[in-house]
Amino acid sequence: MRAPIVVVNFKVYETSSINALRVAKAIEKVSDEYGIKVIIAVPATMIATISSQVSLPVFAQHVDGDPVGPHTGSIIPELIKDAGASGTLINHSERRMRLDHIADVLERLRLLNLESILCVDRKELVAPAALMSPDAVLVEPPELIGSGNSVSRARPEVITESIKLVKSNPNVSLIVGAGITNYDDVSKAFQLGADGVGAASAVMKSPSPEKVVGEFLRAVRDQGSRP
Amino acid sequence: MRAPIVVVNFKVYETSSINALRVAKAIEKVSDEYGIKVIIAVPATMIATISSQVSLPVFAQHVDGDPVGPHTGSIIPELIKDAGASGTLINHSERRMRLDHIADVLERLRLLNLESILCVDRKELVAPAALMSPDAVLVEPPELIGSGNSVSRARPEVITESIKLVKSNPNVSLIVGAGITNYDDVSKAFQLGADGVGAASAVMKSPSPEKVVGEFLRAVRDQGSRP
Amino acid sequence: MRAPIVVVNFKVYETSSINALRVAKAIEKVSDEYGIKVIIAVPATMIATISSQVSLPVFAQHVDGDPVGPHTGSIIPELIKDAGASGTLINHSERRMRLDHIADVLERLRLLNLESILCVDRKELVAPAALMSPDAVLVEPPELIGSGNSVSRARPEVITESIKLVKSNPNVSLIVGAGITNYDDVSKAFQLGADGVGAASAVMKSPSPEKVVGEFLRAVRDQGSRP
Amino acid sequence: MRAPIVVVNFKVYETSSINALRVAKAIEKVSDEYGIKVIIAVPATMIATISSQVSLPVFAQHVDGDPVGPHTGSIIPELIKDAGASGTLINHSERRMRLDHIADVLERLRLLNLESILCVDRKELVAPAALMSPDAVLVEPPELIGSGNSVSRARPEVITESIKLVKSNPNVSLIVGAGITNYDDVSKAFQLGADGVGAASAVMKSPSPEKVVGEFLRAVRDQGSRP
Repeated sequence: MRAPIVVVNFKVYETSSINALRVAKAIEKVSDEYGIKVIIAVPATMIATISSQVSLPVFAQHVDGDPVGPHTGSIIPELIKDAGASGTLINHSERRMRLDHIADVLERLRLLNLESILCVDRKELVAPAALMSPDAVLVEPPELIGSGNSVSRARPEVITESIKLVKSNPNVSLIVGAGITNYDDVSKAFQLGADGVGAASAVMKSPSPEKVVGEFLRAVRDQGSRP
Repeated sequence: MRAPIVVVNFKVYETSSINALRVAKAIEKVSDEYGIKVIIAVPATMIATISSQVSLPVFAQHVDGDPVGPHTGSIIPELIKDAGASGTLINHSERRMRLDHIADVLERLRLLNLESILCVDRKELVAPAALMSPDAVLVEPPELIGSGNSVSRARPEVITESIKLVKSNPNVSLIVGAGITNYDDVSKAFQLGADGVGAASAVMKSPSPEKVVGEFLRAVRDQGSRP
Repeated sequence: MRAPIVVVNFKVYETSSINALRVAKAIEKVSDEYGIKVIIAVPATMIATISSQVSLPVFAQHVDGDPVGPHTGSIIPELIKDAGASGTLINHSERRMRLDHIADVLERLRLLNLESILCVDRKELVAPAALMSPDAVLVEPPELIGSGNSVSRARPEVITESIKLVKSNPNVSLIVGAGITNYDDVSKAFQLGADGVGAASAVMKSPSPEKVVGEFLRAVRDQGSRP
Repeated sequence: MRAPIVVVNFKVYETSSINALRVAKAIEKVSDEYGIKVIIAVPATMIATISSQVSLPVFAQHVDGDPVGPHTGSIIPELIKDAGASGTLINHSERRMRLDHIADVLERLRLLNLESILCVDRKELVAPAALMSPDAVLVEPPELIGSGNSVSRARPEVITESIKLVKSNPNVSLIVGAGITNYDDVSKAFQLGADGVGAASAVMKSPSPEKVVGEFLRAVRDQGSRP
């Protein structure tokens, strides 16, 4: 997964697929303007609808490791791929997983050429997570999630130390999240060396999601053009 | 939920939505021939696709009780309704739930006018389940699931006793499942007084799902026309 | 389980078994003074130590339904019985269980002549819970737990309605809890018809647990002696 | 944790603390004969009883990461320490944990000077597990657990590769388990470079547990005395 990475997690803030599609299309528009891809992670029920009408990479928010078969209610990698997803978040703070299930899921995703962003809540888990070979590790101190107080400002050392730790596996990108709200948060994260940023409430609870994402992308572009 | 009820749980036997849609359309065809509705419970990722192209009632296989908001990965009642589902299975043997979560989900489903089929594994849970006011209780002795040895033949007393027990709430229907494979299994279940039958592997692993469902519906019709 | 029932849940407020034993002995003393039994629910690691030195009924706080065998880490009914427990709480708000596991555990407890107190969080679950045949149902509105605002004062209708609902099974006692702190809370609960009361933080976080329990027992005695 | 390590997991094969104590004392006797410490992992309810009467290091089989406070039913590190345990297994195949909970628990155990053996099911998890800094990683291919077909014979490459992988953290020992039954299994494991072995059913289901453990210790001694 190549920098710069911008992930917007829709969570379950919007339950109307018509509205969610509108948000996705608005994000697609600013993404096109800046020429920077934005990954959107949407509810499983909306993957097919959104991925068929929007050119952004659509991710699932979670995936179970069960095999094909009698597993009522499981959302397995094959299902999200069929629906048009190009990857998935796993082990999000709102959907933590068992260590062995994380390993199972990552293996399945690789076999299916689906991208994976493995979420962890502390820098101490960055190196172990990287060794499990996801495409990216997303570090989010849980106390800052939805707080409007960004990891870049409140805990920059989480970013700088995580960057070193993720290098236990050179193929893994480092994304940071929690409280990412504006230009400065994004700018600072990339300055500190992160490969990407993740956001949710700042975008989804805004009356103008595309404006917030536009601000993020401007920060990415300005950062990229620095000497 | 009015008798006769026939539920086909797709589980995760088919991960291609094109194939699953083909199965759904074939079931729709026999359903129309017999004039008997068949409920199909499909993976969350396929609800929108199938419900928009097939006239059968489409159910989710599971639903979480979280409210709208920051609940990454949750499939909540509003999401399945938006996708076109008319109801959902809950507490399936492959997706058991906490007692309080079952109560939460049932309340949410009622508010949204979504139908609910609450699954239990033993007759001792039929009366408690009925008191929680789902639209139907589905009893499935787990040792018979996928066995080809039907509850109607192997454990008819589960059906007859469950029928009495479900009456703790007169608005709740009783569905039986596990090992339901052919005409006789369905016929016997209705003779014993069940309001409906549920099946999964017998349909989904058959080269001709519509033929199996057709056999079920013939049994329902023959039973209904008895004096 | 016969009224009046008084349950003190030690939770994990005290991790020293010496201190916990001191609290248990102090409660035993007031229990003897009033001639009213007090059930104490203690951590699994302390059951043997406390039950061998205190004459009060000692309960576990939770129990798993696994059979004897390869179930590393499970606390099963046989283990708590061996340690000297006379019963257990199950499905506490801090340790909710799957519906089928509750049924499994209740059956196991009955076979072993261990008493069971099945916890639920709302009056709507009282009748279903009672039909599962525990010895008692304990209703605790979770928003009042540890609040110091008692169910007796804040939500008396939870008590009066639960009393009617528990009668779906005449052998089951009704205990109420959440915010039970003083004489009045206990008095009111019994006046409203409850068979018992449960408390935790009010006792365990007090510098003088026996004084708090003494106040509860005085309320029970005064209530019992009313015309 | 220093080699040679021998761990016997009692699981819940024996629910009588009198019998379990007898087994523990018999193991203590052979342990003394060979001058090799054997760690015994016993049910939480038995830790106090056994640790007070046997000089072997007594471990818990599982521990929850909750803090002291209102956590009904939780077995937290402080509780097992109070009961006399010197450490605990965590994330056993029969008690898998969330990645973040494993990290929480390991941190708590370190603060309390309790030893930790972190269990994983595949060599791919050995390096990530080692980076989380338990005292030892125990690798057990789950398909061999209780099989009588030992990891030493059936999958020696799991041992040799795990040894290399565990070196991502030089302070962590490598223990192997699954199907360890006799002299040869233990001998082979140490020859391949493991720091320790773990067993459960082979010991606990034997009419003479001390004889089985004695055989293990003889293999350890013979191995140690090789040039």
